[in-house]
Amino acid sequence: MTAAGITGPAGFSAGATTAGIKPSGKPDMALVVNNGPRYEAAAVFTRNRVVASPVKLSRKAVADGQLAAIVFNSGNANACNGPQGDADASALVAEVAHSLALPEGKIAACSTGLIGEPLPMEKALAGAGAVAKALGGSTDHAHAAAEAILTTDTVTKEAAYVGAGWSVGAMGKGVGMMAPSLATMLVCLTTDAAASAAALQSTLDKAVSQTFNTLDVDGSTSTNDTVILMASGASGVSPSQEERETAVLAVCSDIADQLQADAEGVTKRVKITVEGTVTDYQALNAARTLGRDNLFKCAMFGSDPNWGRVLAAVGMADAEMDPENISVYFNGQPVCRASTGVPGAREVDLSGTDIDVYVDLGTGGTGSAFVRTTDLSHAYVEINSAYSS
Amino acid sequence: MTAAGITGPAGFSAGATTAGIKPSGKPDMALVVNNGPRYEAAAVFTRNRVVASPVKLSRKAVADGQLAAIVFNSGNANACNGPQGDADASALVAEVAHSLALPEGKIAACSTGLIGEPLPMEKALAGAGAVAKALGGSTDHAHAAAEAILTTDTVTKEAAYVGAGWSVGAMGKGVGMMAPSLATMLVCLTTDAAASAAALQSTLDKAVSQTFNTLDVDGSTSTNDTVILMASGASGVSPSQEERETAVLAVCSDIADQLQADAEGVTKRVKITVEGTVTDYQALNAARTLGRDNLFKCAMFGSDPNWGRVLAAVGMADAEMDPENISVYFNGQPVCRASTGVPGAREVDLSGTDIDVYVDLGTGGTGSAFVRTTDLSHAYVEINSAYSS
Repeated sequence: MTAAGITGPAGFSAGATTAGIKPSGKPDMALVVNNGPRYEAAAVFTRNRVVASPVKLSRKAVADGQLAAIVFNSGNANACNGPQGDADASALVAEVAHSLALPEGKIAACSTGLIGEPLPMEKALAGAGAVAKALGGSTDHAHAAAEAILTTDTVTKEAAYVGAGWSVGAMGKGVGMMAPSLATMLVCLTTDAAASAAALQSTLDKAVSQTFNTLDVDGSTSTNDTVILMASGASGVSPSQEERETAVLAVCSDIADQLQADAEGVTKRVKITVEGTVTDYQALNAARTLGRDNLFKCAMFGSDPNWGRVLAAVGMADAEMDPENISVYFNGQPVCRASTGVPGAREVDLSGTDIDVYVDLGTGGTGSAFVRTTDLSHAYVEINSAYSS
Repeated sequence: MTAAGITGPAGFSAGATTAGIKPSGKPDMALVVNNGPRYEAAAVFTRNRVVASPVKLSRKAVADGQLAAIVFNSGNANACNGPQGDADASALVAEVAHSLALPEGKIAACSTGLIGEPLPMEKALAGAGAVAKALGGSTDHAHAAAEAILTTDTVTKEAAYVGAGWSVGAMGKGVGMMAPSLATMLVCLTTDAAASAAALQSTLDKAVSQTFNTLDVDGSTSTNDTVILMASGASGVSPSQEERETAVLAVCSDIADQLQADAEGVTKRVKITVEGTVTDYQALNAARTLGRDNLFKCAMFGSDPNWGRVLAAVGMADAEMDPENISVYFNGQPVCRASTGVPGAREVDLSGTDIDVYVDLGTGGTGSAFVRTTDLSHAYVEINSAYSS
């Protein structure tokens, strides 16, 4: 990665350490600190009703639109640990607050890893103290943090956008709930732009809906998914709404692409576009239904232009359609028109890594949406059937 | 199979032939004929909006509650073939009507196989003529029909219920849309009981909702799924509603068990029961959501008692729950209480073929439901990623 990552924008420092939470002995704790002068923040959390203790804590911390730091750990999700989990998340944040002389209520926490195992607090507290002493603003510090949040990811994910006198940086890991009980997508964005918390939240919501929310590897949603944006205002620049939205979307899109490319067991990156519905929402429903269909995903793994599975899958979607007037294109080539096969459809070449699927549901409406997904491979089954213990 | 199958009840004859529709040269056409004296019938079809030509034809044929025969072919679904597909289904039924001197409108058609390939009509018409001349009421005739409707099934599925002077017989194939583009669950039930078409329909609806509709191998729903019950009245017995419901439920349940056991790539049979919701419908939603979660299904393949995935999956279900009060049992052993792990949970033995999963969503409500599903194995990926062509 050449991107400057989360320390690119002025006013941020980061650090990482190996606390011993991961049995592998790899780095497993990170800290990102906003040194101001401003502390506006915005966040998006998992829609799952079963949420991890750090998600509950972070929701409260960011409720007033201000954050000073985020503490991360990998190797343990601190989810489904009952009141003990909540207490552990609070204790971890208290340790960071103490070490950095920051108000406890202004620190968020993000955890990723196995669900249902208590956080090893002796190690975590020692790690929090150690990482607080190892903070810095270099690119190396950003890289170290990006590495310490990984679970089954095979590469770090960082991104940057450089505006006129200001910038946005980001790091991320995982995607959806793709991992072998090592849950979670975590994304941290930093910017030295000045903006109100409300403006940051609407910018983040918009970007997330077009990027992470269109990424659907296996239909699962983690108990820990978190995207946080912190703004230091250190550049002294207040970009226009349009500039801000462009920048945050660009960085989220870059991280989303990296997440898709590193998804568990992926051999194909599949983009599904659905049009010809009455509303965009219906198009999204149909795209998601297809993206989650195991038979379709297995066909993609086999480079099989089996368009019949596309029709069978979208036929079950919560979307208006004309069942006799559905069109399908693979990699730009028509394979089905008026719900009937086009000659030569079975010879379309899907052997490449990227597959483009276009479906028109034939109502004549202007609804449109896309999702990005992956194939269903032997490696996915292998990774996700391994013992959790 | 020792069950007498569809020719067990008086008044039915059956036959099968090899028409050459399947490239493998295995039997691929069957005919089941109701010889009366009565012709009441009931049917349940796929909920998919994209439906095969034989489904459209059969819906019309059974609309008045009367059927005299069903013609089956395997190796080709006759789905997504446009107006030509509809014409081909009609021509096939016309050929059967001509051969048997039956009214065309009283014959249903069931097809299963590849979607989007025109039915090879010369072979199909010759096959229909041949099988019409080879009908008989023996157990061998029933077995031959049960064999001719198979696609990727590895064994025939037949069942029987014997009442006091009357009986029910059945054959089936597939399950949901489990096959490599060789779609479809088809089930044919016969009975010599006398009953009105409305009584048969309500009996069938009730049995289907408790059996085939609780079976969910991969969440996919075929374009061709069909369950038909024909009643000849030849026994002269009119069983009570309770007896009739008991008999049809028993036979459907038996066939559903056989379908689950022969599902593609299955190594585990998983029964998921959900309770503690406000309504049964919510419990069913939660059970289905869990049964379709690939991470959970991979864990089952790996005999991994990873209860965290159960919570993460049900947390996304369209059901009221108390996220802090969810309980999970694997094979009768508690692994999670109050949404927190029970000591020893990771040591629960799931190495057997049958796994029982029980989830209480903790609202205190009396809602309850179950689904039967399977694991997600390498063999599933292998079978479903093979080329369709």
